[in-house]
Amino acid sequence: MGIDIFRTQLEKIDNRILKFLNLRMKLAQEIGEKKKSCGYPILDTYREDRYLKNLKAINRGPLRDNNLEGIYREIFSSSRSQQGGVKIGCPESHFLSCLLASLFRFGSSSIFVPISMHYTQARDGKEPEVDIIVISIPFLLKKLQEDRSFLVSFLPSFSLGGEIDLSPIVSSQSVDNPYFFFQKHAIPKENADSVNTVFLLGGMLPHETLLWIESQKGKVLYSNVDAKNPKNSFYLCKKTAKEPDKESIEYLWEKFTDNKGWIILIGSYPV
Amino acid sequence: MGIDIFRTQLEKIDNRILKFLNLRMKLAQEIGEKKKSCGYPILDTYREDRYLKNLKAINRGPLRDNNLEGIYREIFSSSRSQQGGVKIGCPESHFLSCLLASLFRFGSSSIFVPISMHYTQARDGKEPEVDIIVISIPFLLKKLQEDRSFLVSFLPSFSLGGEIDLSPIVSSQSVDNPYFFFQKHAIPKENADSVNTVFLLGGMLPHETLLWIESQKGKVLYSNVDAKNPKNSFYLCKKTAKEPDKESIEYLWEKFTDNKGWIILIGSYPV
Repeated sequence: MGIDIFRTQLEKIDNRILKFLNLRMKLAQEIGEKKKSCGYPILDTYREDRYLKNLKAINRGPLRDNNLEGIYREIFSSSRSQQGGVKIGCPESHFLSCLLASLFRFGSSSIFVPISMHYTQARDGKEPEVDIIVISIPFLLKKLQEDRSFLVSFLPSFSLGGEIDLSPIVSSQSVDNPYFFFQKHAIPKENADSVNTVFLLGGMLPHETLLWIESQKGKVLYSNVDAKNPKNSFYLCKKTAKEPDKESIEYLWEKFTDNKGWIILIGSYPV
Repeated sequence: MGIDIFRTQLEKIDNRILKFLNLRMKLAQEIGEKKKSCGYPILDTYREDRYLKNLKAINRGPLRDNNLEGIYREIFSSSRSQQGGVKIGCPESHFLSCLLASLFRFGSSSIFVPISMHYTQARDGKEPEVDIIVISIPFLLKKLQEDRSFLVSFLPSFSLGGEIDLSPIVSSQSVDNPYFFFQKHAIPKENADSVNTVFLLGGMLPHETLLWIESQKGKVLYSNVDAKNPKNSFYLCKKTAKEPDKESIEYLWEKFTDNKGWIILIGSYPV
């Protein structure tokens, strides 16, 4: 009995939320028309992320930040759906895990499709007909092992959009982490506070290399150290800088082009 | 330029949504206290589903029903999180796919844990310390093949809560579908409009059996027909009835206890 009184209040609140959600969707449609006429892409993760950051800043609770994020992930997803929707491709050989990462990052109102990403596609110049591609580290490493120019040859018009970190929902032992997404329409990085550059380092690396990366606000995201054959070791790294810093990447490049090591630039994205 | 005007309106709407979300969370806390003192469980999927159905009925759009569902999945999840949260177990041998189904059904503000579900657990009377267990069909079939009394011996205090259908986000070829969830606190079925009963039929089934199931508002969810050895065939079925219909299940039971076929009752849940 006591609970029922609360439930009536709950219904009143939800009626208001529903009203404002519908207003938001109407507005999303109008913004969608504008975007279309200006040639802007439907998805702008950088803008969404900043917008969410502002919402968190004004949030007084008791709604928690991670809950706010979960709800707005779906509100953004629904808004995009009003503008035509976003198509997300997941490699069919790692479909389940990439689908999980996609759902967690882009919400359930997206369109998820398995994509083959076979060599014949690249050879024939056929890129996947999707807006976003979500890739797991095992898939990325497999592809880079097959062909170090994988990103350029398979996805010439896609560029790194960001990372997807599943650790808020599961411990790192249970899933490969992080995932990366690549998007068809690159976001301009000019207005960004800082930029994350992701690269893969491999081969016979002197110990000071990793120390240098750490001293440069860098972080090793994933490593595969082969003690028996150090040539096969590799490190997936991320470096945060105020602006795109070609210099330090070039420094690394020079450091590793003497056939003892190698470096592959995955891309960079604004944060 | 034109877009920026819309964006100011968007911020105003989101400020209101945020305000009402916080009011909802405060109320969820109070309802949580009440639930606690009355011994009610935090999660009541039947009530949530009915509540969502009502919201859809009063929704005038343009927010689409599946989008409303996606947003409210996260609002419900956040509200439960205010009440202490719900712990969801996924079998570690089928972790990724069950996690995907859990995320899609219970939202991201849940706690997801891998559970072993080994024989030693059942032998020692140790049930998983979770509120919900999400199970894929391959896992369920594997366990039932090992031990036909799997559900009773492994999960004595859990009962079938419902199905999870991933087809809204992916085509049925890409993932096993549906999934099932079992919950620790069974929901009373008395007030339900109707009840779904799920059962597994196997063995040498005469053709008219499946016809009979279909004539009884039944549906084959999943089948494995072994033409070479019909004894190994099985059918996962669902039957919808106005109220728990023991009679028809007993009729099926009688029909299949002559050693040509068998039947396992998975459970029933209100719809």
